[in-house]
Amino acid sequence: MSTQDTGANVAAKKHLGLGNAALRARARGLKLMAFDVDGVMTDGRLYYGPDGEAFKVFNSLDGHGLKQLSRAGVVLAIITGRNSDMVARRAADLGITHVIQGREDKGIVLQALAESLELAPHQVGYAGDDEPDVPAMAWAHLAFSVPNGHPCAQQEADIVTRQPGGQGAVREICDFILSALPSAGGVAESVAEGVAGSTGSQPA
Amino acid sequence: MSTQDTGANVAAKKHLGLGNAALRARARGLKLMAFDVDGVMTDGRLYYGPDGEAFKVFNSLDGHGLKQLSRAGVVLAIITGRNSDMVARRAADLGITHVIQGREDKGIVLQALAESLELAPHQVGYAGDDEPDVPAMAWAHLAFSVPNGHPCAQQEADIVTRQPGGQGAVREICDFILSALPSAGGVAESVAEGVAGSTGSQPA
Amino acid sequence: MSTQDTGANVAAKKHLGLGNAALRARARGLKLMAFDVDGVMTDGRLYYGPDGEAFKVFNSLDGHGLKQLSRAGVVLAIITGRNSDMVARRAADLGITHVIQGREDKGIVLQALAESLELAPHQVGYAGDDEPDVPAMAWAHLAFSVPNGHPCAQQEADIVTRQPGGQGAVREICDFILSALPSAGGVAESVAEGVAGSTGSQPA
Amino acid sequence: MSTQDTGANVAAKKHLGLGNAALRARARGLKLMAFDVDGVMTDGRLYYGPDGEAFKVFNSLDGHGLKQLSRAGVVLAIITGRNSDMVARRAADLGITHVIQGREDKGIVLQALAESLELAPHQVGYAGDDEPDVPAMAWAHLAFSVPNGHPCAQQEADIVTRQPGGQGAVREICDFILSALPSAGGVAESVAEGVAGSTGSQPA
Repeated sequence: MSTQDTGANVAAKKHLGLGNAALRARARGLKLMAFDVDGVMTDGRLYYGPDGEAFKVFNSLDGHGLKQLSRAGVVLAIITGRNSDMVARRAADLGITHVIQGREDKGIVLQALAESLELAPHQVGYAGDDEPDVPAMAWAHLAFSVPNGHPCAQQEADIVTRQPGGQGAVREICDFILSALPSAGGVAESVAEGVAGSTGSQPA
Repeated sequence: MSTQDTGANVAAKKHLGLGNAALRARARGLKLMAFDVDGVMTDGRLYYGPDGEAFKVFNSLDGHGLKQLSRAGVVLAIITGRNSDMVARRAADLGITHVIQGREDKGIVLQALAESLELAPHQVGYAGDDEPDVPAMAWAHLAFSVPNGHPCAQQEADIVTRQPGGQGAVREICDFILSALPSAGGVAESVAEGVAGSTGSQPA
Repeated sequence: MSTQDTGANVAAKKHLGLGNAALRARARGLKLMAFDVDGVMTDGRLYYGPDGEAFKVFNSLDGHGLKQLSRAGVVLAIITGRNSDMVARRAADLGITHVIQGREDKGIVLQALAESLELAPHQVGYAGDDEPDVPAMAWAHLAFSVPNGHPCAQQEADIVTRQPGGQGAVREICDFILSALPSAGGVAESVAEGVAGSTGSQPA
Repeated sequence: MSTQDTGANVAAKKHLGLGNAALRARARGLKLMAFDVDGVMTDGRLYYGPDGEAFKVFNSLDGHGLKQLSRAGVVLAIITGRNSDMVARRAADLGITHVIQGREDKGIVLQALAESLELAPHQVGYAGDDEPDVPAMAWAHLAFSVPNGHPCAQQEADIVTRQPGGQGAVREICDFILSALPSAGGVAESVAEGVAGSTGSQPA
């Protein structure tokens, strides 16, 4: 979220959904999109076995969207406060190479990652669902949250997805960014159709 | 979906639910019904353990419907982009012998399977929930999707089920086809009753 | 369901919920209550690992109700078409000794069990969610189903619970029967209060 | 719940949600907050493998709230009727040292724990979802339940959360207590903002 936004603007914007022109303009400039895991790529459930967390539950729609976004040239990253082999494995399956685990200071982590990639804040998006995500959301130019997120994250978000985390929220984010990108062939076009269909408009 | 349908027709048809006579006529001719897995036979959740996907979560109502459909003489197939022992095992438990995993070019796979079974497109149905399913849905004579599916799949579908994938969508599809088949004894009749009951009509 | 009920009566009754006097009278006479597993004691999800079904997901509210019902003198039974160690283990944890697995002819199984216990049909209740349960539901004097059940089971039911299977449906059934039993001390009374509270009435 | 409350008062109060001044005053005095597990820290699902319970499913939002509440000086405890390594492990991950498992007489357990910590009833809160929790809820000065809880627990509760157990109910409880505590720096303030935001009010 850019720092000049007032609380009132944010509150209004977060209900705009995926159709706002100014937000689409921001999405068009993204070179890096970073995601929190628990509550965003999952529904926030932590499956504990006797030795601690045993599973994480991701989503197949999300996976397809992340692959499309990566193919469209947007660098993907995962930043999470917890540590698990499951996140490493899911990232590997999706070809996500920037995976930072065990860090709750996500604003600092995101900024450092952007600098290492020589990207400015207006080229960076972030999606999170809880208090440790807020500094990263505030620093990123386009901040997403989820309807199951904590109120503090929903308030900081430019866009709150319609689907909950782990049930298609990440795909919505990918579709939104892909539909805003300058058309790079079939992928972006077919996705734009999908987004239009979902809002009740006619496909282009 | 047959190729002469316009987008507008599709948009209208997909809300018709399970009562439309033209769609029942198509269902009556089906000899092969193929299903995508993630999002259709499951709710799209991917249960990752440290070594990758550890579980798939199927549905008991769906299983009973698939067995009935098979007994009624419809050949069943599974076509999925991912690879897992869980799908092989579930297919074995249900007596489904045509299981094609690890293929995202589902339209080509479906066409090849139909040819190997000496079936024409009007004898083939397909159920999918995402972009890789769309070519198979477009080629099949009767295309199903799910309410949790991506908008591009819902748009391509002739019928969108009321229940989400993994929570009875496949059973709805089986019931619809069974109720349309020429009565082959108790199975089709009792199912037709069930379907009628679910739409508020009186059982026959 | 007693055999003199017409289809129309059943359709009306199933919406009566837990307040009907005639149904309470039937519940008062129950000596055996038998439950299907998938879709009733669970939400119908089948968790497959590489070697087949790996987990079943039961519910803690249900467990407490089953223990209360057993303590109140009602014999409990499980009749399921599938086979799993998980059901045996859950039954052991709850002290349910009549566990019949791998049988789809549930009407015959229930009748044989009742005979072995020297019980008449009017002393037997059954809860199921799908076609193989229907003969057992038809034979039992009081038949329950769940909102997630197949239409054919909901139609055969005298009572359809408000909570879905695996999410409290079994507890609702236990509470209903307990509240109908002649007061046997604190258990039945406190449960009756709970049921009353849930329907908006004042506790007794 | 304090003992002078009549049933009618409770019924009215439980719908007041998180804004009531008298309840906030009670929250301000809490030194110990104890939680039931199944149905409160989880959604009540019991994941059985062949050898019994294999997993418990906690929630990441809840975890963050519990850590904040602990940092704000409130002692945390878990009291559960079941026994599992998963609860021990989750408690360890969250730094909760008072973990009492395998006890259904929760009122007695809570009272003994409070005494060992030299706390009076007005310094103790409890959250539960079923009949064995009711005596602990009755003894504690502030009693929480969940919308998925048994009616007898919802009736005993001073506050019923909006989110179900395992899906953010515990975080709601933590946020409510934190927002009532005398401001101890950034934590309580930012949480109060979150709570305000979630009820539609303007952040302070």
